[in-house]
Amino acid sequence: MTSSDKPENAPETAAESTEPTGSAQSAGSTERTGIAAQDWARASAEPQYRAAVVDLLGALAYGELAAFERLAEDAKLAPTLADKAELAKMASAEFHHFERLRNRLTEIGAEPTEAMEPFVAALDGFHRQTAPSDWLEGLVKAYVGDSIASDFYREVAARLDADTRELVLAVLDDTGHAGFAVEKVRAAIDADPRVGGRLALWARRLMGEALSQSQRVVAERDALSTMLVGGVADGFDLAEVGRMFSRITEAHTKRMAALGLAA
Amino acid sequence: MTSSDKPENAPETAAESTEPTGSAQSAGSTERTGIAAQDWARASAEPQYRAAVVDLLGALAYGELAAFERLAEDAKLAPTLADKAELAKMASAEFHHFERLRNRLTEIGAEPTEAMEPFVAALDGFHRQTAPSDWLEGLVKAYVGDSIASDFYREVAARLDADTRELVLAVLDDTGHAGFAVEKVRAAIDADPRVGGRLALWARRLMGEALSQSQRVVAERDALSTMLVGGVADGFDLAEVGRMFSRITEAHTKRMAALGLAA
Repeated sequence: MTSSDKPENAPETAAESTEPTGSAQSAGSTERTGIAAQDWARASAEPQYRAAVVDLLGALAYGELAAFERLAEDAKLAPTLADKAELAKMASAEFHHFERLRNRLTEIGAEPTEAMEPFVAALDGFHRQTAPSDWLEGLVKAYVGDSIASDFYREVAARLDADTRELVLAVLDDTGHAGFAVEKVRAAIDADPRVGGRLALWARRLMGEALSQSQRVVAERDALSTMLVGGVADGFDLAEVGRMFSRITEAHTKRMAALGLAA
Repeated sequence: MTSSDKPENAPETAAESTEPTGSAQSAGSTERTGIAAQDWARASAEPQYRAAVVDLLGALAYGELAAFERLAEDAKLAPTLADKAELAKMASAEFHHFERLRNRLTEIGAEPTEAMEPFVAALDGFHRQTAPSDWLEGLVKAYVGDSIASDFYREVAARLDADTRELVLAVLDDTGHAGFAVEKVRAAIDADPRVGGRLALWARRLMGEALSQSQRVVAERDALSTMLVGGVADGFDLAEVGRMFSRITEAHTKRMAALGLAA
C-alpha cells in the first residue's frame, strides 16, 4: 500500500506511507534537533513537554477506541458477510492500537482514563455530527478520517522524542482501511457515476467537521498546542497551526481527487 | 462458570473451565470412541460428518462475528471509559476466534460465507429479540449467551474428531466476559436488590429466546442434528436433543443462582 518509506526515487503512489506525505510534511525527517533528538527519559524532564505527550497519547488512545466503535457500527451496514468481517478486522486492529497507547500511558505514570477524558467531547461530537447513512458513506468516512488523523499525528510525530515518536508511528500503521475503502468506493462510482457527486459532498462535510473539532481541541489544550508549533514554551502561534491545517487540507484534496471525488 | 472439570473435591471456584460443566456434561471425556477417537483426515471421509462439521464451524463463526458486533454495541452503554475498553477487548477477542474458525473453514475447502449463511437468520433473530436496554442487561446477556453457547459447543465437542474438537474448545476459551460480568452484576444487586428481580426476568427471557432459536437451527439443519445425537446416520432423535437442552438449562439455572438471580 505505500511509498515514501521506500528508497529515493521509488514511485510516489499511495496514501499510507509510514512517513509524512510530501504535502503534509513538516519538520524535516532527516536531521532531528531539539526534543526530536532526545529520548523520553530526557525529554520528559520538562513538565510541559510531559503534559503535552500525555495529552497527545490520550487523544490518540480515545481516537482509536472511538474508531473501534465506529467501525464495528459500520460493520452492520456491510452488504456481505465478507465485508462485515473485513470491517470487524479493522475495528479489532484499532483496538490493539488503543491497548498499546493505554499501556504506554500507564508506563509513563499517567492515568489512561484521565488522559483520554479531555478529548471525549470533541471526538464523540465529530462522530455524532457525521454518522454515515449508508455503507459507502461509512467507508469514505473511515478513509478520510483515518487519513486526516494520520497526517495530523505524523506532523506531530516529527516534534516528539524518539520513544514517543516510534509508538505514534507504529499505531498509525495502516490497518488495511485505505486500500479496502478506495477499492469499494471506486467500484461504486464506476457502477454509478452519480454516487461520486454525493460522496464528494460528504467528504467535504467530513473535512469541515474534522477541522472544526480539531481547532476546538487545539484551542483548549495549551500544552498540546504549544508542542504543535515547535516545542517553544511561550504560547502558541495560531499562524503555524493554521499552516499545518492547510497542509492537511491540501493532502486531503489530493487524496479525494485520486479517489475520483472532487474535494 | 464452573468447576466440574476439576478432580473430585477440588474447591468450587473458577469461572473459566475448558471442559464441559458437570450438569451439561455428556459423552464421557475419558475414553474416546467412534469419531471422537479419529482425526479430521479420517473422520472427514464420511461426507455426512464433513457436512456436519462445516455447519458447526459456520454456526460458531457467525456466532463469534455476531458476538463481536453485540459487544461493540454494548460498549456504547458502558458507564466509564475503562468499562468501554473492557468490552472492546472482549469484542476483539471474539473477532480473533472468528478468524480462526474462518481460516479453518477455508483450510478444509469450505467457503466461509456459505457455511455461515444458514445461521445468520437465527443469530440475528436472537440478537434482535434481545437487544439490551441498559448496561447491566448487556452484561447479563453477554454472560448468559456465552455460557449457553459454551455449554452447547462443549456438548458437541465431545462428539467431534480430535482436530475439530481442539479448535472448538480453543475458541470457547474464556474471553474474560464471565468474571467481568459477574463482578459488575453482583455489585449492582448489592447496591440495589430490586435490580436482581429485573435482571432475573431478563435472564429468563434470554434463555427462552436462545432455546427457541437453537431448536429452529437443529430442526433445519439435518447434518448438524444427526451429529448432535451421537453421530448415527439414521435421522435425529428429538428426545436426545431434548435431553441436551435440559442439561444446558439446568446449568443455566445454577449459574443464575450463583449470580444472585432466581432463574
